[in-house]
Amino acid sequence: MKLQVINPDYRRKIMWDSFILLITIAITIIVPLITVYRIPMTGWLFLFDFFITMVFILDIYLESHTGIYEQREYRDNLETIRNEYKRTAMPIDILAALPLYMILTLFNSPLILEIAIYANLFRLVKLFRVRRTISRIRNSKKMNPSFIRMALLIFWILIAAHLISCGWIYITGGLGDAARLNRYIVAFYWTVTTLTTIGYGDITPDQTNNAQIMFIVVIELIGAGMYGFIIGNISNIIANIDIAKSQYQEKMEKVSTFMKYKHIPVDLKDKINDYYDYLWKSRRGYDESSILMDLPKPLQTSVSLFLNREIIQKVPLFEGTSEEFIKDIILNLKPIVFTPDDYVFIKGEIGYEMYFISRGSIDVVSEDEQIVYATLGAGSFFGEIALLFSAPRNATIKAREYCDCYSLKKDTFDEILGRFPEFAKRISKEAGIRRAETEKKQQDN
Amino acid sequence: MKLQVINPDYRRKIMWDSFILLITIAITIIVPLITVYRIPMTGWLFLFDFFITMVFILDIYLESHTGIYEQREYRDNLETIRNEYKRTAMPIDILAALPLYMILTLFNSPLILEIAIYANLFRLVKLFRVRRTISRIRNSKKMNPSFIRMALLIFWILIAAHLISCGWIYITGGLGDAARLNRYIVAFYWTVTTLTTIGYGDITPDQTNNAQIMFIVVIELIGAGMYGFIIGNISNIIANIDIAKSQYQEKMEKVSTFMKYKHIPVDLKDKINDYYDYLWKSRRGYDESSILMDLPKPLQTSVSLFLNREIIQKVPLFEGTSEEFIKDIILNLKPIVFTPDDYVFIKGEIGYEMYFISRGSIDVVSEDEQIVYATLGAGSFFGEIALLFSAPRNATIKAREYCDCYSLKKDTFDEILGRFPEFAKRISKEAGIRRAETEKKQQDN
Amino acid sequence: MKLQVINPDYRRKIMWDSFILLITIAITIIVPLITVYRIPMTGWLFLFDFFITMVFILDIYLESHTGIYEQREYRDNLETIRNEYKRTAMPIDILAALPLYMILTLFNSPLILEIAIYANLFRLVKLFRVRRTISRIRNSKKMNPSFIRMALLIFWILIAAHLISCGWIYITGGLGDAARLNRYIVAFYWTVTTLTTIGYGDITPDQTNNAQIMFIVVIELIGAGMYGFIIGNISNIIANIDIAKSQYQEKMEKVSTFMKYKHIPVDLKDKINDYYDYLWKSRRGYDESSILMDLPKPLQTSVSLFLNREIIQKVPLFEGTSEEFIKDIILNLKPIVFTPDDYVFIKGEIGYEMYFISRGSIDVVSEDEQIVYATLGAGSFFGEIALLFSAPRNATIKAREYCDCYSLKKDTFDEILGRFPEFAKRISKEAGIRRAETEKKQQDN
Amino acid sequence: MKLQVINPDYRRKIMWDSFILLITIAITIIVPLITVYRIPMTGWLFLFDFFITMVFILDIYLESHTGIYEQREYRDNLETIRNEYKRTAMPIDILAALPLYMILTLFNSPLILEIAIYANLFRLVKLFRVRRTISRIRNSKKMNPSFIRMALLIFWILIAAHLISCGWIYITGGLGDAARLNRYIVAFYWTVTTLTTIGYGDITPDQTNNAQIMFIVVIELIGAGMYGFIIGNISNIIANIDIAKSQYQEKMEKVSTFMKYKHIPVDLKDKINDYYDYLWKSRRGYDESSILMDLPKPLQTSVSLFLNREIIQKVPLFEGTSEEFIKDIILNLKPIVFTPDDYVFIKGEIGYEMYFISRGSIDVVSEDEQIVYATLGAGSFFGEIALLFSAPRNATIKAREYCDCYSLKKDTFDEILGRFPEFAKRISKEAGIRRAETEKKQQDN
Repeated sequence: MKLQVINPDYRRKIMWDSFILLITIAITIIVPLITVYRIPMTGWLFLFDFFITMVFILDIYLESHTGIYEQREYRDNLETIRNEYKRTAMPIDILAALPLYMILTLFNSPLILEIAIYANLFRLVKLFRVRRTISRIRNSKKMNPSFIRMALLIFWILIAAHLISCGWIYITGGLGDAARLNRYIVAFYWTVTTLTTIGYGDITPDQTNNAQIMFIVVIELIGAGMYGFIIGNISNIIANIDIAKSQYQEKMEKVSTFMKYKHIPVDLKDKINDYYDYLWKSRRGYDESSILMDLPKPLQTSVSLFLNREIIQKVPLFEGTSEEFIKDIILNLKPIVFTPDDYVFIKGEIGYEMYFISRGSIDVVSEDEQIVYATLGAGSFFGEIALLFSAPRNATIKAREYCDCYSLKKDTFDEILGRFPEFAKRISKEAGIRRAETEKKQQDN
Repeated sequence: MKLQVINPDYRRKIMWDSFILLITIAITIIVPLITVYRIPMTGWLFLFDFFITMVFILDIYLESHTGIYEQREYRDNLETIRNEYKRTAMPIDILAALPLYMILTLFNSPLILEIAIYANLFRLVKLFRVRRTISRIRNSKKMNPSFIRMALLIFWILIAAHLISCGWIYITGGLGDAARLNRYIVAFYWTVTTLTTIGYGDITPDQTNNAQIMFIVVIELIGAGMYGFIIGNISNIIANIDIAKSQYQEKMEKVSTFMKYKHIPVDLKDKINDYYDYLWKSRRGYDESSILMDLPKPLQTSVSLFLNREIIQKVPLFEGTSEEFIKDIILNLKPIVFTPDDYVFIKGEIGYEMYFISRGSIDVVSEDEQIVYATLGAGSFFGEIALLFSAPRNATIKAREYCDCYSLKKDTFDEILGRFPEFAKRISKEAGIRRAETEKKQQDN
Repeated sequence: MKLQVINPDYRRKIMWDSFILLITIAITIIVPLITVYRIPMTGWLFLFDFFITMVFILDIYLESHTGIYEQREYRDNLETIRNEYKRTAMPIDILAALPLYMILTLFNSPLILEIAIYANLFRLVKLFRVRRTISRIRNSKKMNPSFIRMALLIFWILIAAHLISCGWIYITGGLGDAARLNRYIVAFYWTVTTLTTIGYGDITPDQTNNAQIMFIVVIELIGAGMYGFIIGNISNIIANIDIAKSQYQEKMEKVSTFMKYKHIPVDLKDKINDYYDYLWKSRRGYDESSILMDLPKPLQTSVSLFLNREIIQKVPLFEGTSEEFIKDIILNLKPIVFTPDDYVFIKGEIGYEMYFISRGSIDVVSEDEQIVYATLGAGSFFGEIALLFSAPRNATIKAREYCDCYSLKKDTFDEILGRFPEFAKRISKEAGIRRAETEKKQQDN
Repeated sequence: MKLQVINPDYRRKIMWDSFILLITIAITIIVPLITVYRIPMTGWLFLFDFFITMVFILDIYLESHTGIYEQREYRDNLETIRNEYKRTAMPIDILAALPLYMILTLFNSPLILEIAIYANLFRLVKLFRVRRTISRIRNSKKMNPSFIRMALLIFWILIAAHLISCGWIYITGGLGDAARLNRYIVAFYWTVTTLTTIGYGDITPDQTNNAQIMFIVVIELIGAGMYGFIIGNISNIIANIDIAKSQYQEKMEKVSTFMKYKHIPVDLKDKINDYYDYLWKSRRGYDESSILMDLPKPLQTSVSLFLNREIIQKVPLFEGTSEEFIKDIILNLKPIVFTPDDYVFIKGEIGYEMYFISRGSIDVVSEDEQIVYATLGAGSFFGEIALLFSAPRNATIKAREYCDCYSLKKDTFDEILGRFPEFAKRISKEAGIRRAETEKKQQDN
């Protein structure tokens, strides 16, 4: 049975990669401890070593059959894959897979045995492959990038702390006869105390032992750099989390200064503040037009169609019109927000726009605002009469709450109607009925 | 008497929430101390425990009758409220309200008594509700967001430090027979010394006690992360405070480089620097037009109307005109700043704009600047003559100090006048009088 | 002799303010030491105390006669000044000026003497006035804001460290019989060791002394916050210093990615990189047009006039024309940069622009680039012939080095010439001569 | 032989500068050690001192013959060079070159010998020249600025740590009789422990020795500032590395909020997310137009020509046209991206643009998308027929994958064709053939 090329995003491959990741973490923890405590690799440990060798050889085989991405283009040609693999990760994988301890212990010489203990540490080069594995797992599952970044940071710090602890045990010889576990815990305690720059000072080097002191100096420098790196990263993550909020606050501050400088009265001030509050809470201050503008034309059309087809479908007037007409209308709508009690227009004004309500509701009121003729909600449209007849608005429209509307300008409307004469007839008929209704209501009152 | 749905912004509800917040803080302080010092909950403590149970049960009842906001839309339907409450916060509130200690001590068995002491700690889950309470209180009172953020940071650090101190007393057994207060203070001292990474080292763990060492390692890691988080937050707050200033300094630096590169002479340099200084001090560098542009149309109109109606009202020429005319004028004004000694225009130039002074004052001077015909202050207008007659300016206008003006372009002016013929007559009459006056003055000199 | 209102920017007032600042620093250093060491205020110290009282009383008198700024508007009305002063700083100044020690020691009772020693510390409230003094001094001298910020940060830290040291001496009783200087130095050493979170641990509190421990906990918390604040400030200062460079690097990175993605060849790549390098080194990446656009109209005109009048003056053709003409030309010039070996235009192309060289030099070459007819440097102009005759360019122009030029578009040029017929004649004459010269050269070759 | 002016970018000069840099580092390490250990400068050390004197004298000679840059303009005039050198760096170089030790030891008096030991330290002023040397080396080799910044930071920290260690040995007299190496290592250990704010406290000052304590206080303050500076720098570097990513994430967050608020369906959501992912991975989110816009006109033309000439060359239709025509076409192309399965246009739509494929491939399909007439790849063009005849599109075009296209608008196309009548004929002929082909295919099906 010949193995085909494996897709790196294939679920079972990702599971294998995760397994290799766990194995890598395991050897990173176990191998240095074996080395510093000079534990003979017999019994279970021997089996473990053998098992790892097998797994890593299998991994090399699988990796040399896994497709790769080059600038987002997938390559599944075996030759290309192998050449790329040989050029990059294969040496690392082979070094990690070599059962150096087993091979060297065959010689049965004290010197070579000594070397074997350290040779074992070469397995740790597999850590260099963690990055790739994580990037593959990350690709397959969408996770918060800040969260991944924090998790990786903690992961690498713990790996580093473990290695430094083993180094400390090696260089100081631990605490003599104390149990291995206690010796390790004390070493880890010393490491964390140093890396966090706490430095209690209950465990300090022998001042006549240059090797110990130099080891500590190096660890201190690494620790300080690492701590600085952590703080830098946390600062950066916090700054990024708040980037939208910062921009919003900055805008608010400018608006506040403006309002203060211009002595804007309290009620208008509150209205403006409330509007920005609404903008932030409902949409984190984004601007619909600018988001659409950033998309490529076809996607822009898809989104606009989706967003507004819903409205058009709610508007009885547009039922049964051609796809082309709806597209034309939709691509010419402009988003507009009304705050509570805003006048959309006032009776008698010459109208230049009709409106579609996407969210919220408005009141159709009489000139003196005493009578509410109607309340229109999401999916309603209004203001079309004045557009058709170039007549003054025959009612006042007032927003009841925050309203997301879309407006359609008279000139655009005329242009579109000109292209669809059969629809022009229908809309004029409907508008006639509406006008009659409104006039009747006004006479009744 | 049936309880209606309570508005979460209702003043008495906020007071109740604040009371619950205080109770939560109190139990967070007291309960862990009771546990680590194994203080029997009798007498006053029993009453306190009973009181808390009652208060928390009442809180559950009130919460299940408190209206909620979903995407800024208020819901006061009892069914909706209860479902939402059951789904989210109710389990926490019930766990905090359970009088576990009282119930368990009824069994009167040493083992269960032991459990009861720890079970008491479940009350601390109420801390998870602090966030909601604070966000409610915050909504009702407008406070500086940076200040709230700092205060919350300090609050959570103190809570954490208290809990860690109690943990330290528990794990080390305190200092033997020392007074409880002293033992707590020493534990708190150790906690703060560790969290701030100072680490004097006068209190260190018993190196043979693995539990103690591991506890400290965990605290050190938490402490380092926390300290990094604090520094990150402070950096971020400082950066946000200064965001407007940073942008201003960056702009200033560019302007400086430009002036240096182009060898701008000292007096012009000083004038430019002074202008930016004025811009910063008077309005933190904001741009009026861009602020107005960000507002939705109706708010924009309201603000413009407010800002300029004041000017229009000051201008005698516009007294008694229709609301429509003033709106038309106002929406077409453009803000413009003059620096001291700037020429607004020079005698003989063909004028294309008239000006309204919003702040500051200007001088009407002769061609040789020897004679000051008049000084106009805030609320004055000038330059209308040239607009009416397409004639050259008949005087030189010079800014006395920093002037915030609004300009009205000739073509816009003509357009508006065309729509209001009766006002066109009046303004031409007034201009005629003015021209006569100025000519007379010039002849006199 | 009646004292007039003093201008706060007046040189002698600033000197007085600086003197008060020094006195304030002196008492901040001396008074706490007197208190903790319980040094009797006799002899020189008594005179010093008396002197300070006098100086501070004089300061109150002067301050109540110093003009103030309100939103950049200077107020020199005595009534306004005094009301403002009474409302804000006067209570502080009076408290600092009160000779409490002297007054209290008159009672000659041990208890009151005890109080007197501490009452002396009230003088330190004068520190609250340091901010104002520094802002006044800062206004009068233009200094790097980052430098001032760092200096103030260090100043306040040293003040804090001194006060904490005195607190430490007070709470621990110093080191018994050791000399006062040594006791102070050790206390200062402990303070700095704690504030910097180093915490050697050679000086630690008596663990049975709750007061000492609590004092240290407070200092540690203050220290950690202060250290975080310092790091935040330094980060912010570094970020601000580099804000222009960051933006430039970000742009460069984008350009690099673009060039890589589009496989731009190496020579073109180098040219683009070199251009950005030039842009950064010569003008930190600013854009002349956008800087001018930010200025108010009149300043914009002044700068443009200054910048380009120099060029126009260098151009023999424009000598002796009217101020109006030069203004018209200048306000219509557009800045343009040529990189070395760029073709400004090629022989035979239809020309639409003429050019003025502001910096650098260009070569007028034949079609095959073999013959260099002329080399034009800063202050030269070219390309005017094609504009006049709508004829093809009669030579190729190539930049020798980086050239800052200004271009004048044909349509703008025609418009301006139309308004100045007498100059139109002259320029056509000059162009005729030039064309003859060039044609003759070409025939010669 | 007279020495000519040396170019500072000349390879051998850079090598000499690098050599001087190494020598400077060497003396910075050696000289303070000689001073604090009072090692007599005899034998090898004497020769070393003599060698340095010679090298530094030679350096002064070479520097006074090295050309300089002033605002990117190279100056090779000897007079200018020398004046500039005398004004700036010469005093430093002379002080570093003076063999003060040798001269002073000639006097053979104990006091002067004492001075000689310290006088030697003056050589360290050469460190002030490191900055210039590094900036020269940096200019000649393009390296990552963040990397250089980190490397320099580490370099200066190590230099500072070395000097502080020597200071510590001097002030404490080291550890008595311990070996010099051990004394130095312990001092360095103390320095690093203090600078990193770890402060174990195993080495602390004698509390009765004011000099020692004050030395430590100063070092602690320097250390805290330095540590803050390091953290600030790391934060800044991290922030700069991520500046493009931050902006991208911020945009993504806004888009997400928008999609959530507007209830965009999952498939459209995925398409938008995928598009942004593509944009980031393929070009780090840059916008081609804005990058081109930032370049000066001639470079812009060069890049556009390079980018699109490739396409034009691939298009058979444009073969053999004039350079002028190609330039005209190219400067009027607009970049446009299609996502997989996007419709470029649909059969029957009126076409206003023709397209050139730069990357990716598209399918020409029938109206019902059942038949794929053709698949066009990079270098193909389509849509020209409708442009020529103002006829409806006679096929549907659908993107197979992400496609980078350039579009040419009908009006621009007409304009260009108008200027090149001979090419207009040819393109109409080619289009006729194409139309016939497509129609035949449709009839066949």
